[in-house]
Amino acid sequence: MTTQPPRPAPGPEQQEREAELVDRVAASFDSCPDPRLRQLMSGLVRHLHAYIREVRLTEEEWNRAIDFLTRCGHLTDDRRQEFILLSDVLGASMQTVTVNNEAYDDATEATVFGPFFVADSPAVPLGGDIAAGAPGEPCWVEGTVTDSAGTPLAGARIEVWEADETGHYDVQYDDHRTAARGHLFSDSQGRFRFWAVTPTPYPIPHDGPVGKLLESVGRSPMRASHLHFKVAHEGCRTLVTHIFVRGDELLDSDAVFGVKESLVKDFERQPADVPTPDGRSTQGPWSRVRFDIVLAPAQP
Amino acid sequence: MTTQPPRPAPGPEQQEREAELVDRVAASFDSCPDPRLRQLMSGLVRHLHAYIREVRLTEEEWNRAIDFLTRCGHLTDDRRQEFILLSDVLGASMQTVTVNNEAYDDATEATVFGPFFVADSPAVPLGGDIAAGAPGEPCWVEGTVTDSAGTPLAGARIEVWEADETGHYDVQYDDHRTAARGHLFSDSQGRFRFWAVTPTPYPIPHDGPVGKLLESVGRSPMRASHLHFKVAHEGCRTLVTHIFVRGDELLDSDAVFGVKESLVKDFERQPADVPTPDGRSTQGPWSRVRFDIVLAPAQP
Repeated sequence: MTTQPPRPAPGPEQQEREAELVDRVAASFDSCPDPRLRQLMSGLVRHLHAYIREVRLTEEEWNRAIDFLTRCGHLTDDRRQEFILLSDVLGASMQTVTVNNEAYDDATEATVFGPFFVADSPAVPLGGDIAAGAPGEPCWVEGTVTDSAGTPLAGARIEVWEADETGHYDVQYDDHRTAARGHLFSDSQGRFRFWAVTPTPYPIPHDGPVGKLLESVGRSPMRASHLHFKVAHEGCRTLVTHIFVRGDELLDSDAVFGVKESLVKDFERQPADVPTPDGRSTQGPWSRVRFDIVLAPAQP
Repeated sequence: MTTQPPRPAPGPEQQEREAELVDRVAASFDSCPDPRLRQLMSGLVRHLHAYIREVRLTEEEWNRAIDFLTRCGHLTDDRRQEFILLSDVLGASMQTVTVNNEAYDDATEATVFGPFFVADSPAVPLGGDIAAGAPGEPCWVEGTVTDSAGTPLAGARIEVWEADETGHYDVQYDDHRTAARGHLFSDSQGRFRFWAVTPTPYPIPHDGPVGKLLESVGRSPMRASHLHFKVAHEGCRTLVTHIFVRGDELLDSDAVFGVKESLVKDFERQPADVPTPDGRSTQGPWSRVRFDIVLAPAQP
């Protein structure tokens, strides 16, 4: 893609021709029986056409876009989701999260879901270790789950997942074993605690078209260190979020724009000789972090 | 997808949060070394986020969009291009053609390329038959190729392709044979002539996600009857277009918005007993159409 000479602005007749096409396409959804789908489609058409008209998209660029989407599609399977990565690096995932969380100001903030969640994760007892052999520095995670009035929520289902210290989630392992993910339930006072590994930075999968795009535009594929949470309790809005590591130098350049200040937590590094909360021997330094989770009501 | 209660407009703090995210994502392309790519990416981000914010896209809808794109990708292969179909039914293909053809007002109008072109089509002599056994009523096509000053262009490469009377292109046949496509060259006076089949309406492939989308929104997958042309000559802009059949009732509801009045031609039906221009016996009625093609200069 090379620099092109600036084109003259389209004349009034041309603008009319382009606008007429937008109206004609948008109107093709007029008889859609579902009013929400009609709104989604005609809105999509108006914004997509506005983009094509504004940048004066060339036919060669259009071809490259079709080819790009095709390559994303061919790479996507049960273990790799290139379209989610694309949405993530365009900030579209984070904007969708933002748009849907206005009403939950009293609750813990949400962030992107990411492509690495797996349903049916292993059950882990309170105080258990989700790492299951994933390499990394041990990290003690504890906190409470309450509603927005501060009432502890017992039996909240807490899903956690993360990359290991080599920057890989278990779904990226060749041997398909499960590690560094699990779920547990808060106790009668809303408390939870578990061992994990201290989050470290890692690149999003960048050997595909999205990675090539990032490289072409001079952007890094690195994500700020984080630990994923999905927290559900009856009567509450399910929260999908991460916690980030204070001091991580990637907090301002997260590849998917997922960082929110309220989600940056102190992961306190502990020398090997400091006793762990449950007496476990870590055979080296470890860290600890506290995350108190506030769930919004299901119906704001 | 069901009707949702209208949501209150986002408050000023929320709007600021959303706008800040748009700016942050757009700015992530600031160090892109290619200025055109930077413009394309930051423009894409601004329009995509404007769409998400305007329709207040829900997370469930976002999930459905990811799933839709995934299904398009999995269906796409060497013989089926679902992303082009998607672009076509959203009018994005036609808008791209429109944006790129302002400067060619003196030339024959362009329209969408479609997903059925195949490189390396058979060479057909002037007066030959591109049908190659494709079922349909014989149609005699003739015309000239000139530049925009009216000078005949000898040796212009004319690619033609079309669906047969059952509504299928050869690439949709199970036996992979080649039919109803070919290329020929204009003679020393810029003239061309060939036999084809009279175009008939057909649905775009609608057994995939794009077809399901059209069904959900109450739109027909039918295309107005047409014959594809791609015409190239040194020093001229390559023209990609169709001719349409005057009187076709689908001219106003073409599934891909490809119809332009200047491309609607008189296909004159001839009874079986009218002699053909080259004396060929058609064993039934036939049609004839004239299409005079004007190519724009390569550099407008």
